[in-house]
Amino acid sequence: MKLQRVGVIGATGLVGQAIVEWLLRFGYLPDYISLFASQSSDGKSLTLGQKNFSVLSLTEKAIQTLDVALFATDAAVSRQWISIAQSRGVVCIDNSSAFRQDPSVPLVIPEVNGHVLATHPQVIASPNCSTIIALLALAPLHHTLRMKAFTACTYQAVSGNGTEGLRTLERERQCGDSFSEIYSDRIEGNVIASIGIPQGNGFTDEEEKLCHESRKILASPELQATATCVRVPVERAHSMALQARFESSVDLAMAEEQLRYAPGIHYTLTSVATPFRCAWNEDCFVSRLRKDPFDDKQLLLWTVGDQIWKGAALNVVQILNRL
Amino acid sequence: MKLQRVGVIGATGLVGQAIVEWLLRFGYLPDYISLFASQSSDGKSLTLGQKNFSVLSLTEKAIQTLDVALFATDAAVSRQWISIAQSRGVVCIDNSSAFRQDPSVPLVIPEVNGHVLATHPQVIASPNCSTIIALLALAPLHHTLRMKAFTACTYQAVSGNGTEGLRTLERERQCGDSFSEIYSDRIEGNVIASIGIPQGNGFTDEEEKLCHESRKILASPELQATATCVRVPVERAHSMALQARFESSVDLAMAEEQLRYAPGIHYTLTSVATPFRCAWNEDCFVSRLRKDPFDDKQLLLWTVGDQIWKGAALNVVQILNRL
Repeated sequence: MKLQRVGVIGATGLVGQAIVEWLLRFGYLPDYISLFASQSSDGKSLTLGQKNFSVLSLTEKAIQTLDVALFATDAAVSRQWISIAQSRGVVCIDNSSAFRQDPSVPLVIPEVNGHVLATHPQVIASPNCSTIIALLALAPLHHTLRMKAFTACTYQAVSGNGTEGLRTLERERQCGDSFSEIYSDRIEGNVIASIGIPQGNGFTDEEEKLCHESRKILASPELQATATCVRVPVERAHSMALQARFESSVDLAMAEEQLRYAPGIHYTLTSVATPFRCAWNEDCFVSRLRKDPFDDKQLLLWTVGDQIWKGAALNVVQILNRL
Repeated sequence: MKLQRVGVIGATGLVGQAIVEWLLRFGYLPDYISLFASQSSDGKSLTLGQKNFSVLSLTEKAIQTLDVALFATDAAVSRQWISIAQSRGVVCIDNSSAFRQDPSVPLVIPEVNGHVLATHPQVIASPNCSTIIALLALAPLHHTLRMKAFTACTYQAVSGNGTEGLRTLERERQCGDSFSEIYSDRIEGNVIASIGIPQGNGFTDEEEKLCHESRKILASPELQATATCVRVPVERAHSMALQARFESSVDLAMAEEQLRYAPGIHYTLTSVATPFRCAWNEDCFVSRLRKDPFDDKQLLLWTVGDQIWKGAALNVVQILNRL
């Protein structure tokens, strides 16, 4: 039983709902959980984890009744309300990108850098889903081998765009036509190598986040990370092919040992993890670990994780648990 | 009008049929094209390019009536029949892996190394589909910048497994269940990071082909190529994210210029090529060219090509045209 008064902001979205479900699973009492969303959802009721909740629109009065506010909102909403919540002494955990690069805000994956929570920060940011899934696999290797660089090619599920992504895939499956308002092309029977906003250098912001966030989380300001982020017609769970370069020559057996005992990941030697099997799992799944035949300092691997759970909602609630 | 007597071996498969269609498009006369397949297809008739053909089972007698035999068969069948055809003076172009690493057999992408055909070889091998699609984009860069290494992450269509791949995806779409005999997991709504036969070093033969074949085609025995090959629920056209390292620092504008005027590819600066749009095209489509922000000698790019056409059938017929 956890008696903190927890508010979930953006509670009607996929991540917001999953946050409420994880709170219940971790023993937070329904009566102490308040759900907030935009005005259009005011008064709506939601059944999550077999409990009924009513959704309210957020007010300054409401926010000061909370001990903790969990934000599953976009960066603009987070920025607006977190400054208000903060001034009322409410601890905020934010899933948006608003504060991730703020030097005064820790960016946390509990299994990787949970120790930074010891300073009792008032605002904590949760990383982008792809960063969490990549680093859960790479951090254990980094800690013993010191990672200098990595490259990621992603295979990202449509639920990364929330219910709108799922609905688009579903409609395209049923009608054959393209119904995409969120994608530049149909996604069913297709892949789209463009996620996020194009930057001047040819990368997208989604691709750059992976680098900036990894540097902060691993406290490795010189880490070199490049990515190609690709949307695939998969409902749920992001996959990625990673190639990582370390300071010195890598012993494969030792790397395997690191992954076998690392928290939050499930390492498989022989089978290949797929998003269809790994969705709705707390752990991320690492497979196909192998050495680069041309570079003794490089490893390749394949990792898959539920980006709504560990990539977002579960990570937020795990941060709360660690506070 | 081309009066060579051409046999297509394995003519009932996706690649075999596409070879016949490309022969007709290039002006080969239907009466001079013979279709062969396994005994189970003997006597079957096929309509391709609005012409009717009857399919025969291959015999030693039949093969010696040909000037050229085009093999869209598996390696075992190619090995068996090419030695017979060769002894009868028939020129053979083989789409299988049987002779690709044979030092006496040229491995040819006409746009890349068509000059090796000047020696009038009697057996010519056509590369694996992923090799063709990767090298059409990389070879023009290699020729001016000297490529030292590249990494590929692929997004390969189910028709890479022929009609069986297409049928599997179709059935899984209709019934929801997994019907896969050729895949280790369902492919609809999923991605599978395992194509080909696992090798001792953790790579698959599909992944290794890309390296061995690229070395031979580019005559660069020291080229270092690593890959992660992944099947995606796309009907047709393979995509891949490539990261290439060159001998010295790269000028992006010059690299763009190379791609803009390279044969067989269509370079787009702003839009992102998708397999849905690039299927049924002769050209491969290159987009998202960008410099590695951490390494002046590296480029990243995204390339998409119809693996049944340019990745197989069209390449075979283009080799024939060049002879």
